[in-house]
Amino acid sequence: MGIEKFTDVKPSEYLYNPEILTRLDFSRSPATFSPKISAAQPGEEWLKVRPLQRSDYDKGFLQLLGQLTSVGNVSKKQFDERFTQMKQSGGYYVTVIEDTRVGRLIGAATLTVEQKFIHNCSLRGRLEDVVVNDTYRGKQLGKLIVVTVSLLAQEVGCYKMSLDCKDKLIKFYETLGYKMEAGNSNAMNMRFEDPS
Amino acid sequence: MGIEKFTDVKPSEYLYNPEILTRLDFSRSPATFSPKISAAQPGEEWLKVRPLQRSDYDKGFLQLLGQLTSVGNVSKKQFDERFTQMKQSGGYYVTVIEDTRVGRLIGAATLTVEQKFIHNCSLRGRLEDVVVNDTYRGKQLGKLIVVTVSLLAQEVGCYKMSLDCKDKLIKFYETLGYKMEAGNSNAMNMRFEDPS
Ligand SMILES: CC(C)(COP(=O)(O)OP(=O)(O)OC[C@H]1O[C@@H](n2cnc3c(N)ncnc32)[C@H](O)[C@@H]1OP(=O)(O)O)[C@@H](O)C(=O)NCCC(=O)NCCS
Ligand SMILES: CC(C)(COP(=O)(O)OP(=O)(O)OC[C@H]1O[C@@H](n2cnc3c(N)ncnc32)[C@H](O)[C@@H]1OP(=O)(O)O)[C@@H](O)C(=O)NCCC(=O)NCCS
Repeated sequence: MGIEKFTDVKPSEYLYNPEILTRLDFSRSPATFSPKISAAQPGEEWLKVRPLQRSDYDKGFLQLLGQLTSVGNVSKKQFDERFTQMKQSGGYYVTVIEDTRVGRLIGAATLTVEQKFIHNCSLRGRLEDVVVNDTYRGKQLGKLIVVTVSLLAQEVGCYKMSLDCKDKLIKFYETLGYKMEAGNSNAMNMRFEDPS
Repeated sequence: MGIEKFTDVKPSEYLYNPEILTRLDFSRSPATFSPKISAAQPGEEWLKVRPLQRSDYDKGFLQLLGQLTSVGNVSKKQFDERFTQMKQSGGYYVTVIEDTRVGRLIGAATLTVEQKFIHNCSLRGRLEDVVVNDTYRGKQLGKLIVVTVSLLAQEVGCYKMSLDCKDKLIKFYETLGYKMEAGNSNAMNMRFEDPS
């Protein structure tokens, strides 16, 4: 059990090995899809679920994140550096949905894997930065991307997957198997400065 | 701004550069200490606040974590491997308090630093695995270790620091500058298996 290391230097370079996505068993998720879809079979043949690629700077990845929160003016060079750092560190599974008809990213979610000493040197997953392009919402794609990275967390050996969310999204995540734990579900923050 | 890289192969090898701890300005923290203490001056001359060392397996680090949650039977080899992996990944700031009279660790807290694309390729800190040995509680050491890693988060460039906690610890963290954010303070989890 450990964080998967993966090197690949093609121009379409992936952040992590796309092969892992083909191994996910969607029948393990409590989420209900109708019609049935999965990361390998996302319903429409022009939809593709895959790891972030280095070339995704030009496919609207940051514009997509801009529908979630402020992104700021990130240059191609900054994007490249962060991509490289994430890959070197390991444990970053930024996952996207592409509409291949237009070559644009229309959904994204990130699994980060934290190494621990507790629970037998365990791994803890975290769900971060979930977004679906507004014109594609309500078509199960939010569920699809969240279930994909949640199954991925289990596949790479995490003992649990955690997330912080707004009140209005609690129900959404409950249908996907996430729970508020009695007496232990408080997310607190300290902010140091105003970002971008 | 980036995650500090640090290599050091002495037997007393540190997980991260101890020099950063000397730069922390405790007057920036909203926490009140009386008497005044800091990471550099923890009150008693036999107390030392420092990064985790490879040799801490033999100073009761895992027994200390055992007062927080289940740790399981972690061998020296497993500990070494996890220490090496954390150091290679970067972004792991496991920080401890040692009672040098007895050569035992009596407090610990971890800052993990997550790399993001949002907010101008920002860094987000997380507070994890806070514990003080039961016979040393109520002497400001919990505050000391949490403020230490919180200032560390700011020092390494995080725009915010986050934590999940039990209801009974909300007040404790509030006095240290952490806040529940209205409508956005829900921590949810999905558990995959029983660890250890
Ligand atoms: C949240 C988000 C990812 C959902 O994407 P989506 O593609 O519309 O979601 P789906 O079509 O898969 O919806 C799945 C189910 O959740 C429900 N749902 C979706 N968004 C919801 C919301 N904001 N509140 C409550 N329920 C929601 C849907 O009604 C649907 O229910 P159903 O299966 O019973 O019909 C999308 O609304 C989004 O990108 N929002 C802005 C960014 C954001 O808030 N991200 C989450 C940060 S914590
Ligand atoms: C939580 C913990 C780290 C605090 O350590 P400590 O050394 O006793 O804390 P301090 O002496 O610095 O206490 C600081 C203040 O917080 C208060 N406090 C400490 N623990 C508290 C608790 N569990 N609930 C409410 N207040 C608490 C103290 O009364 C003190 O208040 P004061 O400054 O007004 O006198 C320690 O109790 C511990 O290790 N607990 C078990 C592990 C755990 O629960 N970790 C946190 C997981 S989220």
